Amino acid sequence: MRWLEALKAAGGDRPIVLEPTTSADTAIEYAVVWKQPPGLLENLPNLKAIFSLGAGVDHIFADKRLPDVPVVRIVADDLSSRMSEYIVWRVLDHFRRGRAYRSQQAQKIWHERMQPAAREITVGIMGFGELGQNAAAKLRPLGFRIAGWSRTEKSVAGAETFAGQAGLDGFLAATDILVVLLPLTAETRGIINTGLLSRLKRQTPLGGPVLINAGRGGLQNEAAILDALDQDILLEASLDVFNVEPLPASNPLWSHPRVFVTPHAAAISDPDALAPVVMRQIAAHERGEPLRGVVDRKAGY
Amino acid sequence: MRWLEALKAAGGDRPIVLEPTTSADTAIEYAVVWKQPPGLLENLPNLKAIFSLGAGVDHIFADKRLPDVPVVRIVADDLSSRMSEYIVWRVLDHFRRGRAYRSQQAQKIWHERMQPAAREITVGIMGFGELGQNAAAKLRPLGFRIAGWSRTEKSVAGAETFAGQAGLDGFLAATDILVVLLPLTAETRGIINTGLLSRLKRQTPLGGPVLINAGRGGLQNEAAILDALDQDILLEASLDVFNVEPLPASNPLWSHPRVFVTPHAAAISDPDALAPVVMRQIAAHERGEPLRGVVDRKAGY
Repeated sequence: MRWLEALKAAGGDRPIVLEPTTSADTAIEYAVVWKQPPGLLENLPNLKAIFSLGAGVDHIFADKRLPDVPVVRIVADDLSSRMSEYIVWRVLDHFRRGRAYRSQQAQKIWHERMQPAAREITVGIMGFGELGQNAAAKLRPLGFRIAGWSRTEKSVAGAETFAGQAGLDGFLAATDILVVLLPLTAETRGIINTGLLSRLKRQTPLGGPVLINAGRGGLQNEAAILDALDQDILLEASLDVFNVEPLPASNPLWSHPRVFVTPHAAAISDPDALAPVVMRQIAAHERGEPLRGVVDRKAGY
Repeated sequence: MRWLEALKAAGGDRPIVLEPTTSADTAIEYAVVWKQPPGLLENLPNLKAIFSLGAGVDHIFADKRLPDVPVVRIVADDLSSRMSEYIVWRVLDHFRRGRAYRSQQAQKIWHERMQPAAREITVGIMGFGELGQNAAAKLRPLGFRIAGWSRTEKSVAGAETFAGQAGLDGFLAATDILVVLLPLTAETRGIINTGLLSRLKRQTPLGGPVLINAGRGGLQNEAAILDALDQDILLEASLDVFNVEPLPASNPLWSHPRVFVTPHAAAISDPDALAPVVMRQIAAHERGEPLRGVVDRKAGY
């Protein structure tokens, strides 16, 4: 169990247990969890905070008997960097026509494709928090234009920002490559649907808009994505997350020629990099300092 | 002829001819060329400078009867940006295990690969001039370590630099991903050979070193690259340039499973972006200002 080892290594002499052995373990003050069994945390009388082992917290709120203590997302350079690598990689592979060149190579065809300049392309990022802004900061030096959409208004240097339902049409109409990094909440579940995809920019130098989802599988209607691809509403897609994971062998996304599938691997949580972040937060909390990444329970992220 | 149109559009009322119609056209003062017929430029009595339509000039020096006027490479943001896009794209595709994930998808295998952090990887750039330093500036924000090798000593912020034959061993031993952007000269022809490839870092988190050549095909010994791949001295390669272009269908590089082939498309010369750069240089030259990118004939680049 790499997490346990990493937490012990980062925790000094702080006692750490793998799972509470009784339903009312009074010694436990901090829980570090990923998809905990429902009810597991309910009866820990001295619990002070719950930490997620990743950027998302929807797996924690799946437990309807969650105690009323702060829930904390991981905010760490290592995690943001890995996610941004994935985003830049996928944006460039679609933009530089990776699929077309791989197909040409298989047929030994020497043919240069029309290549727009990055400045002609707007990457629209849905979910413009820590991760979205980090990705934007790494896409901008390559020359892409950046649009950012978030639930509440944000001002970010070098990006055109849009907010809320009122801003969604403008955001989608400006977007050649859509990157989804939204948290999964009641409000965002199924947001990537036919209505949304059909409002993306039609006249793009790439021949059609591109979808990249590295947020959560629950954000996407997979039938709608397949329809949009087959009706040429969508040119290509890179999906790292799915409604059901592991993606069942029967799911047609696996074999669609214009879909690139990765196994929820965009940003792995590296215990060695992240355990010290959790332990530093606990230490700071005990000194009376505020926790970073506390979730707004009402918003769900 | 898109170049002729773009030059005319950028040239104001300056007369432009597609090719000299006589061998001693006295009106021609500036030549803008790509692989000109040998001897074509020799008898232009009023020629003041020769401009290449790309970053390379080896195609100009292939003409052994070249007049003694400045030969000028194109130095333009558009060209550097396109080259850096290609480099970042290829580095990320190798680093993030694109080949493995495409192969897994074809077999519907859900399996997360071990993924090192970018900070564990050194991208070594051979040819650390305009293009190499531009690529470095776009790789650094992603967290990669940068090593640069050039003929003469250079000091570049954020990069470890090596120079000349004396610096080559240290540079290769530090390099996980080798990016070649060298000019083709008598000194560099065939430099990517067995000896060089076998000196790349062996203990790399990727499982083996990676080669990316976006310079010139003449830099590489293609049999040596194939050998290095088959002997697991090299993990993977992305090649945009070849000894013979178009790459003949009989060349085994086309079908090697660990080679990615593009048709000399890393950085297309976009006439609309580059013609104004040439025309601004001519105007500056006529005002008595220095030309940017003048080639050192002795060094050959």
